[in-house]
Amino acid sequence: MGKLTVVGIGPGDYENMTVRADRVLGECQVIVGYHVYVDLVRERYPDKEFLTTPMTKEADRCRMALEEARKGKDVAMVCSGDSGVYGMAGLVYQLRGEAAEPEIAVVPGLTAACSGAALLGAPLTHDFAVISLSDRLTPWEKIEKRLAAAAEADLSIVLYNPASRGRPDYLQRACDILLRTLPEDRPCGAVRSIGREGESRTVLSLGELRDFEADMFCTVFIGSSQTRVIGGALVTPRGYRDV
Amino acid sequence: MGKLTVVGIGPGDYENMTVRADRVLGECQVIVGYHVYVDLVRERYPDKEFLTTPMTKEADRCRMALEEARKGKDVAMVCSGDSGVYGMAGLVYQLRGEAAEPEIAVVPGLTAACSGAALLGAPLTHDFAVISLSDRLTPWEKIEKRLAAAAEADLSIVLYNPASRGRPDYLQRACDILLRTLPEDRPCGAVRSIGREGESRTVLSLGELRDFEADMFCTVFIGSSQTRVIGGALVTPRGYRDV
Repeated sequence: MGKLTVVGIGPGDYENMTVRADRVLGECQVIVGYHVYVDLVRERYPDKEFLTTPMTKEADRCRMALEEARKGKDVAMVCSGDSGVYGMAGLVYQLRGEAAEPEIAVVPGLTAACSGAALLGAPLTHDFAVISLSDRLTPWEKIEKRLAAAAEADLSIVLYNPASRGRPDYLQRACDILLRTLPEDRPCGAVRSIGREGESRTVLSLGELRDFEADMFCTVFIGSSQTRVIGGALVTPRGYRDV
Repeated sequence: MGKLTVVGIGPGDYENMTVRADRVLGECQVIVGYHVYVDLVRERYPDKEFLTTPMTKEADRCRMALEEARKGKDVAMVCSGDSGVYGMAGLVYQLRGEAAEPEIAVVPGLTAACSGAALLGAPLTHDFAVISLSDRLTPWEKIEKRLAAAAEADLSIVLYNPASRGRPDYLQRACDILLRTLPEDRPCGAVRSIGREGESRTVLSLGELRDFEADMFCTVFIGSSQTRVIGGALVTPRGYRDV
């Protein structure tokens, strides 16, 4: 019986992978994943067997990975960002169920909240919420409730999946909910294609964010009441008194 | 003029550092940090100049790092976990203010939410909030409000700084607030000393967590309404329908 390791590769470039992720991918026999993520690592580990499935076939992908491990192979399933934050780690455990084998390990990676925050400055230096705007697997009403609660509790907020071709106006809808509680001039940020070609960062107000054209490569940050723009960086001070 | 890079080294072991963090520490001239974190990297980069300050002297530490950069040295300031999540990145930007120099860069690292989740299984596969229970820099009333809001919005919750010698009962107080909304049998987890000697993980109910003896090396996870224990792992399913 082989082992299945769910590996977060971070934003996509080699430098932002952990040493452990690099080692696991180097040691495994089979790399399984969504084809875009597999393509990010294919060159670095050319001697591996690669298995891919399309975007909406997540369960098939996990079943395939478990099956390869049952055949005796050491399998790495790659996820972008962290394997545990909107990644495949949960689904792999669900599909194995109460069986003790194959062994599963989760290798964490840099999630877009952390890698995106670093590009903008330091917007997450205090408490924050991470919320996905994708309603493919979550009712929109639940997303709305979470947005309203996070704003009400004065948390910084990170939005994953702020828009896609099928949901071009979701970021605008989210901003409208936040604007019921938060002021239009609340400092915000958006990053695109972190660690990849065409990487960009934008610091803007919540009012401007409402009209920002986000896509599926973007991650969006909404500041708390403490967040400020300092020297072009988006910063949420932690409250040290001797500053 | 040198450059100041604020480096998240992750939980503390070399394997969980990113390739980039390792490169920056290898290339810099001075490594600045809280002595515990500096000790975690001292052996690997023996030829560096090391500067440390005690725990509550965060602003002094950042001023020292900026001053070394102004003298022309390339400085790396090390933070455990991610440099931007309760780390020093924000304070460094605050203390530089609107000056354009020295150049600041933030190198993200694995924060305990991600590295701890990976040890427990996959508790953060859906939306979550990250809240510190330390009231050294935040009024306790604000922390209480955030806990209540996160529970009400059915977010998974990660608690940083759940207890310390001076705050032995804070986790209990937090659990009491959560138990106003959440059931006693809500699946939870706690990890201790991630990636270091004595690493441990515990899966338990919210009722049990109330009496768990946490310390400053622990990170605590409270599940959402979807979170389940599957084969000993704490898992928050994302909601894939074909499972």
